[in-house]
Amino acid sequence: MVLSALRHANRLAGRSVAVNALKRSAASGAFHSTPPADPVPPPTSASQSLAAYYFPNEPDLPRLLTSFPGPKSVEKLKSLDKVYDTHAAYMLCDYRNSVGNYIRDVDQNIYLDVYAQIASIALGYNNPVLAAAAQLPEMIDAIINRPALGNFPSMAWESILQDGLIAAAPNGLGKVWTGLSGSDANECAYKAAFIYHRSRQRGRSSDFSELERQTTMENASPGSPDLAILSFEKAFHGRLFGSLSTTRSNPIHKMDIPAFKWPKAPFPALKYPLDQHEAENRVEEDRCLSAIETILHEWESRISAVVVEPIQSEGGDNHATPYFFQQLRNLTKQHSVLLIVDEVQTGVGATGTFWAHEQWNLDTPPDMVTFSKKFQAAGYFYGNEELRPRLPFRQFNTWCGDASKAIIAREIVKEVHAHDLVARTSQVGRYVYDQLEELQRTFPHLMQNLRGKDRGTFIAWDATDLDTRNKFLNDMKAVGINIGGCGSHSVRLRPALVFEKKHADVFLDALEYVLKQS
Amino acid sequence: MVLSALRHANRLAGRSVAVNALKRSAASGAFHSTPPADPVPPPTSASQSLAAYYFPNEPDLPRLLTSFPGPKSVEKLKSLDKVYDTHAAYMLCDYRNSVGNYIRDVDQNIYLDVYAQIASIALGYNNPVLAAAAQLPEMIDAIINRPALGNFPSMAWESILQDGLIAAAPNGLGKVWTGLSGSDANECAYKAAFIYHRSRQRGRSSDFSELERQTTMENASPGSPDLAILSFEKAFHGRLFGSLSTTRSNPIHKMDIPAFKWPKAPFPALKYPLDQHEAENRVEEDRCLSAIETILHEWESRISAVVVEPIQSEGGDNHATPYFFQQLRNLTKQHSVLLIVDEVQTGVGATGTFWAHEQWNLDTPPDMVTFSKKFQAAGYFYGNEELRPRLPFRQFNTWCGDASKAIIAREIVKEVHAHDLVARTSQVGRYVYDQLEELQRTFPHLMQNLRGKDRGTFIAWDATDLDTRNKFLNDMKAVGINIGGCGSHSVRLRPALVFEKKHADVFLDALEYVLKQS
Repeated sequence: MVLSALRHANRLAGRSVAVNALKRSAASGAFHSTPPADPVPPPTSASQSLAAYYFPNEPDLPRLLTSFPGPKSVEKLKSLDKVYDTHAAYMLCDYRNSVGNYIRDVDQNIYLDVYAQIASIALGYNNPVLAAAAQLPEMIDAIINRPALGNFPSMAWESILQDGLIAAAPNGLGKVWTGLSGSDANECAYKAAFIYHRSRQRGRSSDFSELERQTTMENASPGSPDLAILSFEKAFHGRLFGSLSTTRSNPIHKMDIPAFKWPKAPFPALKYPLDQHEAENRVEEDRCLSAIETILHEWESRISAVVVEPIQSEGGDNHATPYFFQQLRNLTKQHSVLLIVDEVQTGVGATGTFWAHEQWNLDTPPDMVTFSKKFQAAGYFYGNEELRPRLPFRQFNTWCGDASKAIIAREIVKEVHAHDLVARTSQVGRYVYDQLEELQRTFPHLMQNLRGKDRGTFIAWDATDLDTRNKFLNDMKAVGINIGGCGSHSVRLRPALVFEKKHADVFLDALEYVLKQS
Repeated sequence: MVLSALRHANRLAGRSVAVNALKRSAASGAFHSTPPADPVPPPTSASQSLAAYYFPNEPDLPRLLTSFPGPKSVEKLKSLDKVYDTHAAYMLCDYRNSVGNYIRDVDQNIYLDVYAQIASIALGYNNPVLAAAAQLPEMIDAIINRPALGNFPSMAWESILQDGLIAAAPNGLGKVWTGLSGSDANECAYKAAFIYHRSRQRGRSSDFSELERQTTMENASPGSPDLAILSFEKAFHGRLFGSLSTTRSNPIHKMDIPAFKWPKAPFPALKYPLDQHEAENRVEEDRCLSAIETILHEWESRISAVVVEPIQSEGGDNHATPYFFQQLRNLTKQHSVLLIVDEVQTGVGATGTFWAHEQWNLDTPPDMVTFSKKFQAAGYFYGNEELRPRLPFRQFNTWCGDASKAIIAREIVKEVHAHDLVARTSQVGRYVYDQLEELQRTFPHLMQNLRGKDRGTFIAWDATDLDTRNKFLNDMKAVGINIGGCGSHSVRLRPALVFEKKHADVFLDALEYVLKQS
C-alpha cells in the first residue's frame, strides 16, 4: 500500500526514495533492507548517515502486510485486556525486531515512527550503544540491587550523574534531584518551591512552630499552607494530583479528579509563521504578560512558582517567542516567584538546542528545569543551594529515582555529544520544515498553522478539526507512518534524534500521498 | 567491634554463632566466609538454608573496619553532595560486593541488613536469579526500547504480567494497572476511585456535560469535584500531592506542602501483645469504627474511597485486628465507598502471607490493592471491570509503568512460589519474635510494645523516646547491623525474604549486646 503511496508522491524537489527498493519490498514481503557486507564506519561528517552506522539493518521503507490495526494486534490486545487496560492501545509491538526509526508490530507490519513512544525514544529502537549499556555490570547491579538513593546511594552514583545528567545540565543549574517520570519530576520541583517559599518566610534560623506541626497533620494552614503554582492555559505538566492541577490541556486529562484551586494565566495564542506576524504576536504576548502580572499581584505571596513549557506540547504545540519568556523571567524575579521550566517533552535535543529554553537567551537561568521522556531518567536541575531543604527527609521517598535509568541517560548524553545529534536534528528539522511549508501551500485546507521553524524536528500543524485530524492520523498509519496528535486538532512530529533526511523523505512522500487522497 | 558484641551476647537459648568464625573474621579483616568447594544444592526442605544456595559467598557475620560512617563514606558523600542532595544519606554503598543479607559500604564494612533499602529488597543483594533475569534478552529489550505501555504495549507484556504480577494477584483481584512507585500506585488508585464515583453518579449512558468540561479546566467543581479519600491518623501513603494528602505519619513528611482538605479517621491505638489485651483493644477498635462511620455520614457521597495499610508502617508499625478490617470493609460497603488496601510495604511475603490483608478473611475482597517496594514494579490490583474508565486516556500517562521492573517482579514471584518464601519468612519471624519477647522481658525499659506476632518478620517495638531510639539505631550500626526506625520512637525489622535463623541469631546477639550497653 505504501508502495503506491510513495510512487504517487515522489515529485517534491530534493527527495529521492529508491523505487527499486520499494519494488523489492513489495515483492518479497520481507525485511527489505539488505544489511551491508561490511560494518558501516561511524560518520566522519554531519552529512553522513549516523543511522546507517547505528542500524545497518534499518529498513528503507515501511512495510504493510495487513490493514491497521493488524488481526494479531486485535486478537492479542483483546487477550491482554483481560488483565490490563488496553483502551488506549493502538497496536501490539514487536520491539525486539524494531530497528532505528522503524517500529514493527505483532503482525510484522513495519512503520516509520515519528511519534517514538510519545516523544520518549532518543536514539531509535535497539540502538547498539544502549544495548551494550544494558549489559554493563553496573546496569545489572542497578537493576537487582536497586538502592534507596537518598539513604544508601551507591559508589557508582556520583559518576553516573557527573558523566550523564550533570554533563547535560542547563547553564547555571549544576545540581539534580532525580525522580521517576515527568509528573513526578514536576511535583518534586513544586515541593522544592513550596519548601523554599516557606523557608524564606521563616528566615534562616527558625524552626517549625507547634501550630505548623499540628495543622499540617490536619492538612490545614499554616502547616499545609494555601500556596499555589501558577500555570498556563493549555499547559500539560502531568497527571498526578499536584501536576494535574497545573495541567490545562484537555478535559479528558482532568475530569473527575479533585484539583487544587491554583490560578491559570493565558498563554499567547500566536499566529504562524511567527516571522510574518511579529507585530500582532507582540501585542498578544504583552496581553498575556500583563495578565500574568495581574495574577501575581492578586495572589501576592501565595504563588511559589510559575511553571511553563518552552513549547506547550500535549496542549497543541503552542509557541511563544524568546521575548515572552524573557519578560516572564523578569516578572518572576520582580515578584520573588520561582520559574520552573518543564522540559519533559522539549528537552534532550529535539528542538535545535539541547534544552529548548537555551533559545531564550535569559540573563538569569530558570530556577528549576524538569526532565524525563527521552532521558528515561527524570527529575529537575537547579543551581541555588537554598532550593535544597535544610532538613533531611523533606524532599525524599523510597527510591529517589532509579540508577538504571540514569545510566541510560548517561549513554544518551555521550552519544548526543559524540555525534552532535543536536545539530543533526536541527538540520533535518530545517529540511522537514521547508518541505512541509511547500505542502502547506499545496494543501492549505488540510494543513494550517505550520510551526516549529528553527525548532529542530519539533514541528506541528493544525488539521481542519478533530475528526479530520484523527482520520489523518489513521490514514498515515495505513501507509506505514506512526504519527501522533496533540491539542484539539493538531498533528505533531516527535521522531527520535536519529531521524535523518532519508527518513524525512519517506515521511514526506507518505504525507503528500495522504493529503492528496483526502 | 562486633566480635566483642557477639562474644558477650551469646547466651540466649537456641542461638549458635560460631565464635571461631568470628575470630577468623577479626584476625584477617577479610571477607571471612570461605565459599564451599562444591556448589550448594537447592534446599529440599524448609529446614535447609535457601540463602546458602543463593549466596555461597554470604558472610557469616558483619565486619567493621572503621567507625560508622566510615571515612570514605564521609568523604565521598561530601563530593556527591555537590550535585545531589545527601542530607539523608547514611553511607555510600558498594552494592557490587554486597551479598544476600549483608550490605557493604565503600569503607568495606559489612553490615547485616534488616532494613533492606526501606523494605524494598525481596531476595537479598546480588541474588543470582535476578542477576540472570537482568541479562535476559527481554530485559535488555525492555530497557532500551521502553514502551509507552498504554499506547504501544509489547508482545511480551501479557506473559510478563501473567507469569508475574497476576500470578501473585490477591484473591478476586485479577487485573492490574502499573505505575512507578508506591505513591504513584496510590494516586492511580485514587484516580480510579474518583472516576468510578462520578461515573456511577452520571449513570452508564451519560457523557460529560459542557459545564463539567468547562469547570475542570478551571480546577473547579463539578468537573474537578470536591471529592475525598478518607485515610487514617499515622497513615503513610506516599509523598506526591494526592498521596501526601492521605499521609498523616509525621510533620516532616507534610510540612509546607499544600494538601487537599480530606478527612482523617482515628486508627486503633492497640495495646501489645494483642492476645493479652483483647477486650480493651476491641473497645478501642469499636471507638475508631464508630468515628469512621460518623465521618462517612458527615461526608455522605463525597468520600470516594478509604485507604488503609494492613500495618501502618512508616507511622510506627501500628496494628489492628482482623475484626477491625472486617468491620471497615462492611462500613465501606454500606456507604458505597471503595476500600483501597495499601500493601506497598506489607506486601510480597513479609508478614506471613503473600498479602497481609489475606489474614483478615474478608467476605468481599478489597476493591483495590496497591503495591511497590519489594516488587520493584508498582501499581494496583482490582477485580471490578467498572473500575476501568470507559474512555481511553483517563487513567493514562506516557509509560504506564515499566516492563523492566515487571520482569523483576515476575522472577520474585517465581522464587517466592518455588521456595515457599512466605512460609520460610513466617517461620523465621516466629523465631525472632519469641527471642525478642525474651529480650523485652530482660530489658523492659529499653524495649516496649513488641509487636508483629504471627506477622512474619514484620516486627517492631518502641524505644523509650526519639533520642533513645536514634541512639539505638546508631549503636546497632556500630556493631554491624543496618536497621531502621519508624513512627515517633519505634524500631522496625524489614529484612529480605532470605533472612533465616542464622541471620536472626547474628541480629539477636548484636541486639542483646547493644541493649546491655545501653
